[in-house]
Amino acid sequence: MKIIVDAYGGDYAPLETIKGALQARDAYGVSIVLTGNEEEIRRIAAEESLSLADVEIVNATDVIGMNEQPKTILKEHKDCSMAVGLRLLHDGGGDAFVSAGSTGALLMGATFFVKRIKGVSRAALAAVLPSDKGPYMLLDSGANVDCRPEMLMQFASMGSLYMSEVMKNGEPATVGLLNVGTEEHKGGDLQHGTYELLKNSSLSFVGNVEARDVPAGAADVIVTDGFSGNVLLKTLEGTVDMLLGYMKNIFYTNLFTKIGALLVKPHLAALKKKLSTAETGGAPLLGVARPVIKAHGNSKALAIQNAVRVAAEFARTGVIDKITEAIASEKEKGDQVTDGATATEATAD
Amino acid sequence: MKIIVDAYGGDYAPLETIKGALQARDAYGVSIVLTGNEEEIRRIAAEESLSLADVEIVNATDVIGMNEQPKTILKEHKDCSMAVGLRLLHDGGGDAFVSAGSTGALLMGATFFVKRIKGVSRAALAAVLPSDKGPYMLLDSGANVDCRPEMLMQFASMGSLYMSEVMKNGEPATVGLLNVGTEEHKGGDLQHGTYELLKNSSLSFVGNVEARDVPAGAADVIVTDGFSGNVLLKTLEGTVDMLLGYMKNIFYTNLFTKIGALLVKPHLAALKKKLSTAETGGAPLLGVARPVIKAHGNSKALAIQNAVRVAAEFARTGVIDKITEAIASEKEKGDQVTDGATATEATAD
Repeated sequence: MKIIVDAYGGDYAPLETIKGALQARDAYGVSIVLTGNEEEIRRIAAEESLSLADVEIVNATDVIGMNEQPKTILKEHKDCSMAVGLRLLHDGGGDAFVSAGSTGALLMGATFFVKRIKGVSRAALAAVLPSDKGPYMLLDSGANVDCRPEMLMQFASMGSLYMSEVMKNGEPATVGLLNVGTEEHKGGDLQHGTYELLKNSSLSFVGNVEARDVPAGAADVIVTDGFSGNVLLKTLEGTVDMLLGYMKNIFYTNLFTKIGALLVKPHLAALKKKLSTAETGGAPLLGVARPVIKAHGNSKALAIQNAVRVAAEFARTGVIDKITEAIASEKEKGDQVTDGATATEATAD
Repeated sequence: MKIIVDAYGGDYAPLETIKGALQARDAYGVSIVLTGNEEEIRRIAAEESLSLADVEIVNATDVIGMNEQPKTILKEHKDCSMAVGLRLLHDGGGDAFVSAGSTGALLMGATFFVKRIKGVSRAALAAVLPSDKGPYMLLDSGANVDCRPEMLMQFASMGSLYMSEVMKNGEPATVGLLNVGTEEHKGGDLQHGTYELLKNSSLSFVGNVEARDVPAGAADVIVTDGFSGNVLLKTLEGTVDMLLGYMKNIFYTNLFTKIGALLVKPHLAALKKKLSTAETGGAPLLGVARPVIKAHGNSKALAIQNAVRVAAEFARTGVIDKITEAIASEKEKGDQVTDGATATEATAD
């Protein structure tokens, strides 16, 4: 298994990215390809006494910034470390690609250089989040601001295959539709249309799910448009940060609270680990023809290591082949329905 | 000051609703009108030894349930405790109305029985939430799933007047637009259109705000459509509940953690109080011609008491008159622009 890592993507690149990739190599026995400034990578490795054994480096001196327009990856930045990695993935130079760089650029680059699975109308950013009932997937979590019911239906199909194959050993995954209430009539046109499609699908649809119940793990897959998905994801992150900050302040109040803190310390550390996005290891871009993982922009070495682990599992389970089959079979069914409709019309004539 | 309270709205009605209203009477010296089953209210008060001094009761034996279609308040449930209270408010039988009943029914009833302020295209549910920098307003937080830029612009005007007058002693309130990133080009048509309007308005617009920064108090007023606003509000609530639950479990782990819990207990209680929606006292329906406050469905006596306090402040500050003036003056400006455009066209002819 060979994983390509964008050494220059993310807030702590390249040092933490390189470290994380090497940790993954050591922990999971995967081969690593780093894309980025080769001279600099070799210098950093030497300075930090990091071994580059079993690591290829593909040189790319340009980097696409977090605030650049995504489309610049197609022209101005077509030779940046992210673009080079994506083309390498497409050409078979590795089994999966990991980047902690700009989400918009990664989506644009993946769609253009790696291509979408045939029949997929849009690729989705599928965040995998921790809950007491195990990890769950939230998609779209920021790639597609405006969505149609057919897109959400495809997101649900892809997400439930991914969760089933990669996270649940083939057990079926439940799907919930994010909505402002649990009753069927809640929401707007997008929710009504998607509810209809999900209800009549072969997926394990559990109905509408309120945002309040998502953090506790209301379903294995939560589908929604990229705007509200992004709002959910970031509200969750912001609230966790705020509360852990409050707890820290409480524990630092005085001698008594400091003693209190010592007594619960190991449990608090376990809680932080449980809630940490560094542990879940990044979000797959579902709908792209080869495995691409978006790691969090603030990834340090541990998060990159876990993203590489997830990328390897994504590639190993062959879930993309299963998604490709499922979409083709949906398409066929759709065509039959259309054919039927045409036939009826013809008869009516 | 006379506040009408829907005695039969909410999960803990009527006992907690009645108790909360009476507590508000005692704490703030307001008069109370209760709507609901008079016989039952008098019986409960007698059983619980609650004094009904300075309390009017307007009889209404019907109740509209949380899961009923909102429009049933206009016909099947037109004489329920909520409808009776809203008509009483309209007819001058009180200065403000508080209900913990169904949000949809309250919005429908308020729009139909109390009417909107002239020129307001839609009333918004404006949740007031706690943060370290003081309370902030999130609107729309669930009333209007589909919105246009002009609606969000009106929400911003109304929200900033409310926060300035009711919460900040006339100090100007800052306004942020909820978006998937801070850069101006982020989001879809709704965000682009609203950004333009806010940028060119006289409001203190701070630009796009990510959901991650909302819980810490990124602006006094956060505007967005009712779908994503509801998602933000409920994700915040769900995450706080989940984390406080985890903390409780940690403290109950063993003898040491129990001692730890004792040492931080008063600080934890203060934190819970700070984050409690019971303290913020409910969400005004902005755009309605008289003060209407939606209390949380799970309100117990303290939350109702605080909702009555907020309702009294809402009425006392006369912010609805200021909103009415602002909307009329915006309308006039709009008409002048239209007149100007027509004049130019005429000249061009």
